[in-house]
Amino acid sequence: MAHTSIYRITVEFGDCDPAGIVFFPNFFRWMDASSRHFFADCGVPAWRELEKTIGLIGTPLVSISADFKRPATYGERIEVHTSIEEWKHNSFVMRHTIRRGEDVLCEASETRVFAIRHPEAPSRIKAVPPPEDIRRMCE
Amino acid sequence: MAHTSIYRITVEFGDCDPAGIVFFPNFFRWMDASSRHFFADCGVPAWRELEKTIGLIGTPLVSISADFKRPATYGERIEVHTSIEEWKHNSFVMRHTIRRGEDVLCEASETRVFAIRHPEAPSRIKAVPPPEDIRRMCE
Amino acid sequence: MAHTSIYRITVEFGDCDPAGIVFFPNFFRWMDASSRHFFADCGVPAWRELEKTIGLIGTPLVSISADFKRPATYGERIEVHTSIEEWKHNSFVMRHTIRRGEDVLCEASETRVFAIRHPEAPSRIKAVPPPEDIRRMCE
Amino acid sequence: MAHTSIYRITVEFGDCDPAGIVFFPNFFRWMDASSRHFFADCGVPAWRELEKTIGLIGTPLVSISADFKRPATYGERIEVHTSIEEWKHNSFVMRHTIRRGEDVLCEASETRVFAIRHPEAPSRIKAVPPPEDIRRMCE
Repeated sequence: MAHTSIYRITVEFGDCDPAGIVFFPNFFRWMDASSRHFFADCGVPAWRELEKTIGLIGTPLVSISADFKRPATYGERIEVHTSIEEWKHNSFVMRHTIRRGEDVLCEASETRVFAIRHPEAPSRIKAVPPPEDIRRMCE
Repeated sequence: MAHTSIYRITVEFGDCDPAGIVFFPNFFRWMDASSRHFFADCGVPAWRELEKTIGLIGTPLVSISADFKRPATYGERIEVHTSIEEWKHNSFVMRHTIRRGEDVLCEASETRVFAIRHPEAPSRIKAVPPPEDIRRMCE
Repeated sequence: MAHTSIYRITVEFGDCDPAGIVFFPNFFRWMDASSRHFFADCGVPAWRELEKTIGLIGTPLVSISADFKRPATYGERIEVHTSIEEWKHNSFVMRHTIRRGEDVLCEASETRVFAIRHPEAPSRIKAVPPPEDIRRMCE
Repeated sequence: MAHTSIYRITVEFGDCDPAGIVFFPNFFRWMDASSRHFFADCGVPAWRELEKTIGLIGTPLVSISADFKRPATYGERIEVHTSIEEWKHNSFVMRHTIRRGEDVLCEASETRVFAIRHPEAPSRIKAVPPPEDIRRMCE
């Protein structure tokens, strides 16, 4: 079975909007943090280290779909459960489930790529196939 | 044809991550702003006004899917083109296209509901069918 | 000696800017969270509970001064040490020290007030003197 | 008299907290954007361009003090008026006034430095004296 990491947060006052519930882009911020924690959990070094060695600068998002089932408010403790569902030739599919205790608040599926700086334009990025050794660390 | 509103932003330094490109939750922040601007554009009052009259507190997200085609960086001017694609009995589908000049950076489709405070638990929310008069203002 | 609470965070990739260091408004976000945690630590209920009973909606900021001594980057674990330095008739002074291990990254001093909704304009707020019982809980 | 730039924003729903007013770290986000706009206004290239030529990666904050006089809420149009108040040997003082029409919402004074990547540790930064030509462009 796929490795699953758990990223824990407490929802803060400033994460909520005038309706008193989490402003939804914050859920994506937490998924992104959980994505990075998944790799750290598997022993993958920080992107700033990998940039120096193999040029990787991160795993930018290609597409995402998410279902929001229940809102959350400040003071609540929630968890992002993250795993890699599928490795493709040029990308991978990451799955996040956000829970508050037994309740599922949100489920999301992301397609991400591994990226390096574009060789001809350092302010652009370029997707590369998932490096074999990183893939092995995450399985 | 559906009414389309355009929300303009300049990408800022602080909107970008260590890879030098927009941190993707910010795109969702801008889509949410554009969603609110769409309603303002159609003449729909602020939620804080509607809460006093008909109890509406906003249009929380039920689901979203988005494709990211090109990154953006700070100093660039981008536009979010927003329209309502479909009205359903209990929800509506909103479409956002984020452009930089002729380039499409991101396309997203959201399902949202109109919400009031839950009558039995003011810290929870409850979906209601799209109010007829708001629907007419937006067509 | 004044009660001190400690709020712990891990700096995330998305908290950092293109220079690779924490985008400074995030330090203020964490101080605000730590301010709320301080009150929770002292047993003060959530503002949404206090709004129902005594009308309090939070402790908005009146002024702040902060010194940034060292930057931080993602993957680092930092702590916000928070205490109330002084109670005034209409406000209080909160002190935050952000540390990474032994290193002080940032020191800040805030003046905040307790606020209720403005009786004549619910979308505005009004400062009230610090409630005696809350003050006692925090000493 | 010092050059003053004006940065305009519309406060969005997601910029506001459960009290219905701007979550204060967003004011600092807007000041930082206005700081960058000030330099753009004076003809100073993007930091990513200056990094390639003279190594500059930005103007990190050393200290800030701010007074918040009035809250703001979503839908309101506000302006950040920004100027450089003083040039010092190793830093400069930037002043921001945030206005909504005639009302001053916030006044802040920042000390910032020009920074390059640390020659011995690329993940750290190092302050350098304000470059003469940039200073001349901004006066």
